Amino acid sequence: MNKNLPSINNKHRINTQQLDMPPRLLLGPGPSNAHPRVLQALSMRQVGHLDPRFIHLMNEIQSLLRYAWQTDNQLTIPVSGTGSAAMEASLANTIEPGDTVLIAINGYFGHRLADMAARYGANVHTIEKSWGEVFHPDELKTALEKHRPAILGLVHAETSTGARQPLEGIGELCRNYDCLLLVDTVTSLGGVPLFIDAWQIDIAYSGSQKCLSCPPGLAPLTLGPRAVEKLNRRRTKVANWYLDMSMLSKYWGSERTYHHTAPINMNYALREALRLVAEEGLEARWERHQANAELLWAGLEELGLACHVTDKSLRLPSLTTVRVPDGVDAKQVAARLLHDYNIEIAGGFGPLAGKIWRIGLMGFNSRAENVMLLLTALKSVLYGR
Amino acid sequence: MNKNLPSINNKHRINTQQLDMPPRLLLGPGPSNAHPRVLQALSMRQVGHLDPRFIHLMNEIQSLLRYAWQTDNQLTIPVSGTGSAAMEASLANTIEPGDTVLIAINGYFGHRLADMAARYGANVHTIEKSWGEVFHPDELKTALEKHRPAILGLVHAETSTGARQPLEGIGELCRNYDCLLLVDTVTSLGGVPLFIDAWQIDIAYSGSQKCLSCPPGLAPLTLGPRAVEKLNRRRTKVANWYLDMSMLSKYWGSERTYHHTAPINMNYALREALRLVAEEGLEARWERHQANAELLWAGLEELGLACHVTDKSLRLPSLTTVRVPDGVDAKQVAARLLHDYNIEIAGGFGPLAGKIWRIGLMGFNSRAENVMLLLTALKSVLYGR
Repeated sequence: MNKNLPSINNKHRINTQQLDMPPRLLLGPGPSNAHPRVLQALSMRQVGHLDPRFIHLMNEIQSLLRYAWQTDNQLTIPVSGTGSAAMEASLANTIEPGDTVLIAINGYFGHRLADMAARYGANVHTIEKSWGEVFHPDELKTALEKHRPAILGLVHAETSTGARQPLEGIGELCRNYDCLLLVDTVTSLGGVPLFIDAWQIDIAYSGSQKCLSCPPGLAPLTLGPRAVEKLNRRRTKVANWYLDMSMLSKYWGSERTYHHTAPINMNYALREALRLVAEEGLEARWERHQANAELLWAGLEELGLACHVTDKSLRLPSLTTVRVPDGVDAKQVAARLLHDYNIEIAGGFGPLAGKIWRIGLMGFNSRAENVMLLLTALKSVLYGR
Repeated sequence: MNKNLPSINNKHRINTQQLDMPPRLLLGPGPSNAHPRVLQALSMRQVGHLDPRFIHLMNEIQSLLRYAWQTDNQLTIPVSGTGSAAMEASLANTIEPGDTVLIAINGYFGHRLADMAARYGANVHTIEKSWGEVFHPDELKTALEKHRPAILGLVHAETSTGARQPLEGIGELCRNYDCLLLVDTVTSLGGVPLFIDAWQIDIAYSGSQKCLSCPPGLAPLTLGPRAVEKLNRRRTKVANWYLDMSMLSKYWGSERTYHHTAPINMNYALREALRLVAEEGLEARWERHQANAELLWAGLEELGLACHVTDKSLRLPSLTTVRVPDGVDAKQVAARLLHDYNIEIAGGFGPLAGKIWRIGLMGFNSRAENVMLLLTALKSVLYGR
């Protein structure tokens, strides 16, 4: 070793214990608990990111993602980041500076879409509703007529409010206005009925850690033919190298050109999560999520608690928002559930801070025993019985 | 379930086998094999990204990263993506449109830095050397004098060439020109002597899957006080939401403001990888990498093979580049090592395509038995004995 090197600073060489984590039941807005088979797959021995065996696995992931999303889109891949990275990829690739983008905001993630779109030079317009409401197609039509955007951004499953935005007919509407339809499906993919092709959605993204029951770290993205055409027509480079689909699609396509080192083990895990979706079947999975959500809603009502989204048909089965009764400290209840019973639920934020709890029943966690345990624990914390 | 839903398309509901991967020895440019303790940590049960136990773990990761990098920098975190994401974060946060950026290019990753910097609106200047050579401080001084950049980008460990760029004195030089020093340490962190503070490096990034022996999917990033000051002085928003350190630093700082869902399990794994660095100690680890590299170099010489970087003191101990003898098909040799012996090495690319092999001895993989096995296998494939 070179003797002229500086001396070593040991200040940050801290002592740490062997990793151990409490057995949390994650019933918040995500991450949800990974399926045990997914955690097993995660720690499989590694191969290289250009290994023929890994390339075969990439193809499987793409097929299984197409099934989960009900799409034939060729460009359907997991982005090497969390859901927010796929959200950003969906905008970075399709927006060119000066494009008009319309975002329908009825919760936090709509605001985030608007913030991101502006960073890519879009001329952003928004229409807003209260957190917990959804948009009627006529309202969207009026806004499309007025702003004539290149892209309309909608949130299918607003994780901040628990509302499900109906999507039927909106794809056709967007086509009439020569506009791409971009949809946030982070909290719906794999848990809530969703048909990318039949509903004519051009751009969608999701996360791995919600209804797919995989750890966070990969984020599905799909671009339909009209979105790919816009990407191919770009006059400017995508302003984000890491998420540039014109390059990434060559790694995930037949060329297999190196772009960045894929997160190997996370891809193992996502494949297993998607296999579980294919084994169960989408209809059965959606029905399970709906049935367990209805169990929860009935139990909350029995406890005298009201759901924030009053119309049952507009509630997300994957994420329920519950109004905090007057005089109850929302944070304290969540803290006691975590401390006394290892159950994680979350509070609201933004205009709903302190006013709601958010309860997730996603993927592997959408089970009757979890509903029963949560209701019993909640009863005990709220009423001491 | 709503009876008006479209019918399910089962075309992509493919049959797949239980996950199984061959026992590859990854001696290419990365990923390297994760340490078994790291793979074990990876599959630990999950907690939420705002769980007090996870927040404690985040603090530990930050401390251990500071030790590995030999820095006191407060803003030292793992970015939620692979090495390329941290590379992009390093530029996205510190470049404002119109800034002059100087990139010293002596391999592929210098080119990538220049490409990325231009996407963030930098006025990019480059100085170039052949792939495998390094820059002398005088050459850098001349270029700094000429271009007066706000940032100088250098690659400490050029994974495409095997050359180690000496960094002593360059930080001081940059300070004289009021310029930030940005350094790519993807293939050096945890394997090659590196002193962020003593060498006055302002911005550095790395990957998890090289000398840290962790799977790919997280990427260390550190910003020193001068870089943070530039970030705080920005007149424009960071043009990349996902990698915006002005927001991310609040999640990793005392505020704990939600930004995006951290890849929980990958953070478990990185913590374990960094614990292993702290247990072994940096000096011992660097010496081990050097000793095993020298074993490899001696063995290659015995086989009649020459290293691409002729000056031993400028060779990376973590990545050795070997000249392909005349008449030998580089790709075929690598394919046979993979097929016959489950050993992965890589070829060269760009101007070195077909001319070199790249052999990595990184982290857990830097062991005498791996050197012995590779040399024996290489001999058998090259000479049939």
